[in-house]
Amino acid sequence: MALTGENLIGATRSAEGLRRLRGIDPRTSTTLEPAFAEATSAEVNRAMELADAAFREFRLVPDSRRADLLEAIAGAIRSQGESIVARAASETGLPEARLRGEVGRTTGQLELFAKLVRDGSWVDARIDLGDPSRTPAAKPDVRRMLIALGPVVVFGTSNFPLAFSVAGGDTASALAAGCSVVVKGHPAHPGTSELVAACVLAATKQTNLPDGIFSLLHGSGHEVGVELVNHPLTRAVGFTGSLRGGRALFDAATKRAVPIPVFAEMGSTNPVFILPRALEMQREKLATALHASVTLGVGQFCTNPGVAILPPTEEANEFKRSLSELVRETPAGPMLYEGIGLAFEEGVKRMAAVSGVALLARADGSEQAGTTFGRSAVLTVSAGDYLDHPELGDEVFGPSTLVVDTQSRQDILRLARSLEGHLTATVWAADGEIDEYQDLVDILTDKVGRLIFNGMPTGVEVGPAMHHGGPYPATTDARFTSVGTAAILRFARPIAFQDAPETMLPPHLQDKNPHGIMRLVDGVPSREPVTRQEDAA
Amino acid sequence: MALTGENLIGATRSAEGLRRLRGIDPRTSTTLEPAFAEATSAEVNRAMELADAAFREFRLVPDSRRADLLEAIAGAIRSQGESIVARAASETGLPEARLRGEVGRTTGQLELFAKLVRDGSWVDARIDLGDPSRTPAAKPDVRRMLIALGPVVVFGTSNFPLAFSVAGGDTASALAAGCSVVVKGHPAHPGTSELVAACVLAATKQTNLPDGIFSLLHGSGHEVGVELVNHPLTRAVGFTGSLRGGRALFDAATKRAVPIPVFAEMGSTNPVFILPRALEMQREKLATALHASVTLGVGQFCTNPGVAILPPTEEANEFKRSLSELVRETPAGPMLYEGIGLAFEEGVKRMAAVSGVALLARADGSEQAGTTFGRSAVLTVSAGDYLDHPELGDEVFGPSTLVVDTQSRQDILRLARSLEGHLTATVWAADGEIDEYQDLVDILTDKVGRLIFNGMPTGVEVGPAMHHGGPYPATTDARFTSVGTAAILRFARPIAFQDAPETMLPPHLQDKNPHGIMRLVDGVPSREPVTRQEDAA
Repeated sequence: MALTGENLIGATRSAEGLRRLRGIDPRTSTTLEPAFAEATSAEVNRAMELADAAFREFRLVPDSRRADLLEAIAGAIRSQGESIVARAASETGLPEARLRGEVGRTTGQLELFAKLVRDGSWVDARIDLGDPSRTPAAKPDVRRMLIALGPVVVFGTSNFPLAFSVAGGDTASALAAGCSVVVKGHPAHPGTSELVAACVLAATKQTNLPDGIFSLLHGSGHEVGVELVNHPLTRAVGFTGSLRGGRALFDAATKRAVPIPVFAEMGSTNPVFILPRALEMQREKLATALHASVTLGVGQFCTNPGVAILPPTEEANEFKRSLSELVRETPAGPMLYEGIGLAFEEGVKRMAAVSGVALLARADGSEQAGTTFGRSAVLTVSAGDYLDHPELGDEVFGPSTLVVDTQSRQDILRLARSLEGHLTATVWAADGEIDEYQDLVDILTDKVGRLIFNGMPTGVEVGPAMHHGGPYPATTDARFTSVGTAAILRFARPIAFQDAPETMLPPHLQDKNPHGIMRLVDGVPSREPVTRQEDAA
Repeated sequence: MALTGENLIGATRSAEGLRRLRGIDPRTSTTLEPAFAEATSAEVNRAMELADAAFREFRLVPDSRRADLLEAIAGAIRSQGESIVARAASETGLPEARLRGEVGRTTGQLELFAKLVRDGSWVDARIDLGDPSRTPAAKPDVRRMLIALGPVVVFGTSNFPLAFSVAGGDTASALAAGCSVVVKGHPAHPGTSELVAACVLAATKQTNLPDGIFSLLHGSGHEVGVELVNHPLTRAVGFTGSLRGGRALFDAATKRAVPIPVFAEMGSTNPVFILPRALEMQREKLATALHASVTLGVGQFCTNPGVAILPPTEEANEFKRSLSELVRETPAGPMLYEGIGLAFEEGVKRMAAVSGVALLARADGSEQAGTTFGRSAVLTVSAGDYLDHPELGDEVFGPSTLVVDTQSRQDILRLARSLEGHLTATVWAADGEIDEYQDLVDILTDKVGRLIFNGMPTGVEVGPAMHHGGPYPATTDARFTSVGTAAILRFARPIAFQDAPETMLPPHLQDKNPHGIMRLVDGVPSREPVTRQEDAA
C-alpha cells in the first residue's frame, strides 16, 4: 500500500489545504516521506456530515454485521501487519517486537468487541412487563436498552500508535456500539495512521457498510481537533494524552450550545506504596520490578509509576541505592517525538529544582542523538517536602520516578490522603501485612480507578473487568474506562420503549429474545422469552 | 413535629444567617409560618465537611445497613404522612389526594432502592480470573465493581415536593449507592422539606449510621446552590428544573478545578405525533386523552405534552375543536408558586405572538385569585411556521399545548427531524399503521429518552426499565435516568482490584460470592463462587 498523504473522508481521498505535516524518525531525526495534507474546515465539515449520514444507517444494521466489520478490520490489519510495523517503527522509534505485540493487542481488541456485540447482552436490556388490569391505571410495558450515541471523534494517541490510535480501543468500542467515527490522526505517526485507516476502509467496503462510518483527518496543531469537537454533529469524543490537551477539549465540549461528553484519559503518576515487611523481604526484587516498570517503553505509558513511597525502615536507603544503580545503567532510548523528549528533560529538571528534592541517579546518554532520547532518572524527597510541594504530583511523562521517604505510618497515610485522582495505585505487602493497612487501602480506593497488589501498574489487561480510568485529573469522567469491553459504554445511552408493538422493537427487546441475550425482566436476570399480558379492552 | 425553620446540618440545627424565606400558600397567597433561615457560606461548608467525613464511614458499611436506612426513611415518612401532606398542600397548592399518592411513590422508591441494594447485583461486578502460567507474562486476577462517588448535592424540585425533593429519587439513589447527601431545599416548600428531612435524620439515628450522611440547607436565590456545586468536597449534583437553572449549574460544575457531573433533568415539550388512521378512528378519545395529559396537575409535569403534531387529514379540524372545547371548560388551578404562574402566563403570550400562531382556546379563570392560577391554553400553528420559528420548541411549563398542522407525510418527518433532545416522544397509530412509519420511529429514537406508543407521556413508571432522561436539552447527561432503579448508576463509578488478597475485597468480589450476586466471570454472567489458580511460584 503506497502512502498518498491525503485525508480519508470515508472512501474519498482529499487534500484541499496548503498545510502539510510529516513524520520524523525519532531514532535518527530524519524527516519521512510523504507529506500529509492537514484537513481544512471544509474537510472537517464534510467528514462530520458524512459520519452523521452514515450513522443513521449504521446504527440500524444487525449486531452481526457490526461484528463482521470489526473482525474484517482485525483481519486487514493482521494481513498488513509487517508494513504497518515497519512504518510505525520509523515514525515512533518503538521496537518492532513491541509494535508486533501492539498489532496483536489491536486486533485482539477488535475481535473482543466483535464477540461482545455478537453476544448482545452488553446493551443492558431491561423489560418491565405491563399489567393492563392494574388499578387505578394500567401498568405500561416498558423496555430499555443501550443505543449508539452518534458520530464520535477519536484522537489518535502518540504512545500507542496502534492500540490507541486509528483503529485502537476508542474506535473499536465506538464502532461496536454502532457509532460512526472520525479520527484525528496523531501528527507523530501520520503514515501509520493512513495504513491502518486503509484497513478500516477496506473492511467497511468488504462488509458492505455505509461509506462514512469512518474517516481519518490529519492536523498538526489544535485547529482540526477543536473544530471536530465543536462541530454540531459530533456526539462524543475519545482522547488519550496530556492533562492540558484533555482539559482543553473538555472545556470546549462543555461550552458548546449542546454539550457533549469527552472521555479524556490524561494520565497520572500511579503511586506505588511499599510496606515495611515487603521491602524487608523483597528489596532487590522490588527495585528490579520498579525499575523495569519505570523504564518500560522509555517510560511512555499512562500507567508509568512516577512516584514510589518507601516505608520508614532502614532498607529504604539500600533500596534507593539499588534502584539508582539500575537507573544509571539504563541505556537512553528514543522517545516518541522531539516534543516529548524535550518535555521529559524539562520535567526532570523542574522536579530536581524543587526544594528538598535530590536527583539520585541519571542514566548516561550524552553520546546518543539529539534531544529525543530519554535518559532515565530517579529522584528522592521527604514526605514533608512532597506534601509541601503539590507540583511534585504533576506527571513527568517519561522514564523517571520520584522516591518519597517517610518517617512514620502516619506519613504514609498522609501521602495517600493528599493524592489527587489517579489511574492506579499499587501496594506491595508481605504475606498478611496488608491486613494491617486496611486504612491505606480504603483511602486509595477513593482515589484511583485500579488498585494493584504486589504488581506493577504498567501492563493493562484487556478484558471485561478491566477499568482503565479514575477520578480527575486521571480522566475527565471517572465513570468510564478506555480499556476493556466496558469501554463500549462510553458511546451508548439508554432509551425506553413504552407499550411498543413488537415490530417496532430492536431484537434485544422483543418478546421472544431471538438472540438469547441476558435481560433484566421485572428486575430479575433472565435469557427466557417473555409473554405480554394482552389488554382485555 | 413542630417546624423550627432552621437548617439541618446532620442532626445539628443551625440558623446563623440573617436572611429568611417563607412558604406561601398558592391557593390563597397567604404567607406561612415559620420563617426559614437561609444557609450561610459557613453553614454550606460545615454541611459539606460533615458529608465528606460521614461518606468515608458510610461507603464502607454493609449493603444491608444502607437498605435498612432506606426502609427506615420510608417508614418514618409513612408514619408522618398526614402532617407532611397537609403542609405540602398548603405550600404547593397540590391536592391532598395527589400528595398522598406522592407519599406512596416516595416511600415506594426508597423501598425499591433498598431491595436493589440488598440484592447487590447492581454493582455490575466483573471478575477476570488470573492465570499465573500464562506466557510471556502471568495474567493477573482483575475484579471490578461500582462504588459510591462521594458527597452528592441534591436540589429539591418544586413540582414533586416529595418524590423529587428532600427524600425523593435523587436522594434515595445517592444514599443507595453509598453517597452522603446535602439537599438544597426548594424555597417554595421549606416546611415540607424540614418535615421530610426530620424523617431522614430520625432514620439515620435509628439505624445507627454516621451523622452527616444527610443535611438540609435552605436558600431562596442562587447563592446557596452555587456554593454547594462549587464546594471542593462535592462529587456530583442532582437537579430537576428549568433549562436555565440546570445549564447554570452544569456550567459551574464543568468550570471547577476538578469538574464534577451534574445530572440535570431540564424538561422538554414531549411531542405527540398522531398518525392519520389513529386520528380517524379515535378522534374523541385522543382529544380527551391529550387534554387530560396537558392539564394533569395544572400542567406541571416534566413530561407534559407541549406539542402535538396532527396528520394532514380532515379530522384534524374536528380534533382541534374538541380539544379547544375541553380546554375552555378546564377550571383554572393553583400553580406551585407565583413565579411559575407568571412564567406560564408570559410563555403563552409569547407563543401566541409568534407569527402564524393562533390561540385556539383559553380556559376562563378571571374570577380566580391572583396570578398564581394557571388557565389552560391550546394554540395552533402550521408545520411551516413551526419550523421557521425554533423558539416554538421552547418549553412553556404549565397547562398548554401547541397543535401543529401538517400538509403531508414529509411535513411529519421534517418536524421530527427538527426536534432537539426530549425526555419523551409519543406516537399514536391505529392497528398496523405504525409499520408504515418506521422512518418516523427511527428519527424519534435518536431524539428522546423514552418513546411511547398509543399512550401519553405523563405518568412515569418507577421500575428497572424506566428511562427518564434524554439528549440535551432534556438533560445534561443523556446516559443516565433520574427515575427508576438505574438512577443509582449516576452516583457510582467503577474501580478494579488487581491481584487483591481476599481480605481486601468487598464481598461483591470475593471468591465465594457471599451474597450470591450476579457477576460477569470471564465475561459470562454467573452467581457461582470462583476459584483462583494459585501461583505455583
